[in-house]
Amino acid sequence: MLEPQRIVRLEDDAVVVLDQRRLPDEEVDLVCGSAAEVAEAIRTLAVRGAPAIGIAAAYGYALAARNGEDLAAAVSTLAGARPTAVNLAWALEEMRGWDGDPAERARQIHAEEVERCRLMSAHAAALFDPGTRALTHCNAGGLATGGYGTAVGALRTAWERGLLDHVLVDETRPLLQGARLTAWELEDAGIPHAVIADSAAGSLMASGEVDLVVTGADRIAANGDTANKIGTYSLAVLAAHHDVPLYVVAPSSTVDPATATGAGIPIEERAAAEVTSRFTARNPAFDVTPAGLIAAIVTEAGVHRAPYSASLSGLVAA
Amino acid sequence: MLEPQRIVRLEDDAVVVLDQRRLPDEEVDLVCGSAAEVAEAIRTLAVRGAPAIGIAAAYGYALAARNGEDLAAAVSTLAGARPTAVNLAWALEEMRGWDGDPAERARQIHAEEVERCRLMSAHAAALFDPGTRALTHCNAGGLATGGYGTAVGALRTAWERGLLDHVLVDETRPLLQGARLTAWELEDAGIPHAVIADSAAGSLMASGEVDLVVTGADRIAANGDTANKIGTYSLAVLAAHHDVPLYVVAPSSTVDPATATGAGIPIEERAAAEVTSRFTARNPAFDVTPAGLIAAIVTEAGVHRAPYSASLSGLVAA
Repeated sequence: MLEPQRIVRLEDDAVVVLDQRRLPDEEVDLVCGSAAEVAEAIRTLAVRGAPAIGIAAAYGYALAARNGEDLAAAVSTLAGARPTAVNLAWALEEMRGWDGDPAERARQIHAEEVERCRLMSAHAAALFDPGTRALTHCNAGGLATGGYGTAVGALRTAWERGLLDHVLVDETRPLLQGARLTAWELEDAGIPHAVIADSAAGSLMASGEVDLVVTGADRIAANGDTANKIGTYSLAVLAAHHDVPLYVVAPSSTVDPATATGAGIPIEERAAAEVTSRFTARNPAFDVTPAGLIAAIVTEAGVHRAPYSASLSGLVAA
Repeated sequence: MLEPQRIVRLEDDAVVVLDQRRLPDEEVDLVCGSAAEVAEAIRTLAVRGAPAIGIAAAYGYALAARNGEDLAAAVSTLAGARPTAVNLAWALEEMRGWDGDPAERARQIHAEEVERCRLMSAHAAALFDPGTRALTHCNAGGLATGGYGTAVGALRTAWERGLLDHVLVDETRPLLQGARLTAWELEDAGIPHAVIADSAAGSLMASGEVDLVVTGADRIAANGDTANKIGTYSLAVLAAHHDVPLYVVAPSSTVDPATATGAGIPIEERAAAEVTSRFTARNPAFDVTPAGLIAAIVTEAGVHRAPYSASLSGLVAA
């Protein structure tokens, strides 16, 4: 497993991120010298994944404080880098409310997110039966979370407990986070896996080759509606059609009590060129899965079941 | 629209195909000097699409006859090039049963397939209401059929009749036949369109942006179960979930009365490297959509509805 500091860290005069755009071919650091450069790294997906961009934003805030930048401007720039994940706003709120050394709080946030991942992964692994054949989408791994991973964390723990047979990995177009990042992490962990075209998931469920689907989340509304990488909703409909449970694994920092339902979650539309540079394209980066299609939401606090408005209420990030 | 002879034709000493692997960047002919070279063009997808590979096989047979090749060996080589589409076997059976000039019969088969496309497209367009926003998968266009197209033919005719608002085009991983070929054909026809990641179809249906789904087919069993490009089954489940009709448009040469149900259709597993060359992958090229998820199957004979065992029976290619 990658060391958390390898994924994102604060140095004396920079925030350094492992550039996820160049993985798995090259392991290259990207050095960000200002809050604006951290925001650019987030916007361009050099660092991505809801918890990881929260952590990067916290480090960006700490860097801005150290640099003597205008902190209100830094918060605005960082918060605006991507609209869907709530962790960005959550982490910046934490930083603004902290009276001590910003670097200390940012490192705490990072350590806390990794610890939450381990806790939720243990809760989620308890949902796996021996011999489970799992399917996952996008990358909800160490890279996305600054450490252990949410959905991939659950797979790691299930594997360590001898409960996991293998993992089908949606390649996750257009940016191939599954084929590039999740497969790389699973290979590193020694977990058997096969990458598939996103559109193959349905027929593999139909042929009985998928026991459960596990994904991360970018924002979870108060009622359990969950925004995640485009395609998660399709998987949820397909899973329900085949009586396959879909589990969402995410830290409490991804739950947004201020957003009542999925209808209130902004969906980022990214550049058409990510899909095709030759023809007109549409490129919504996320979709919203209604709570009714989610078998359970797992946070560091435990396994939450419907009705989520009750089971998620009172959930406060540690 | 591409002239049918531009897509595939018989010359004095060769079958010439427009190499679809290099579209839309380059329009390059591939010259096949023997039945084995035609089979290789089919296997490597230089020419693809169920009706088009049937036509190419017919020309390959005629070329073999002209070359004085062993015809039984030629049939075996051509028939084995790809397993799922029944049109290959159908066209070769037609050629073997023909007593006259093989070139004449091959050209007839080509012309008949184009004519069938025009007829079925007219039948299918009658299913479109004014302002229809359609979604299609893979390429069931002129390129796939040696001429007008099946699903794309329906879109062409609906557009000419003023019934079509725009088309969402699944990019169709792993080989991007939608993003490369269908978008190219729609651009040429002046039909508004946008390419999407395959996994975006579900959320676009959920937001009410899809009125119908229209696809081609590689083989239709006697009961209406339909094999088509991987992802068609997922679309069918999603369409049913959103009360969006899914129409299959295909010539009678794609209907296989000898195959009772979809369980009897062989599904080609192609090279993992088409998905990813870095990690282990699985790459089923087709899936089977149960008849119950198909709103109608349209052939040159008209619009067939469930129960398909009755409505497709007696259907014989002209």
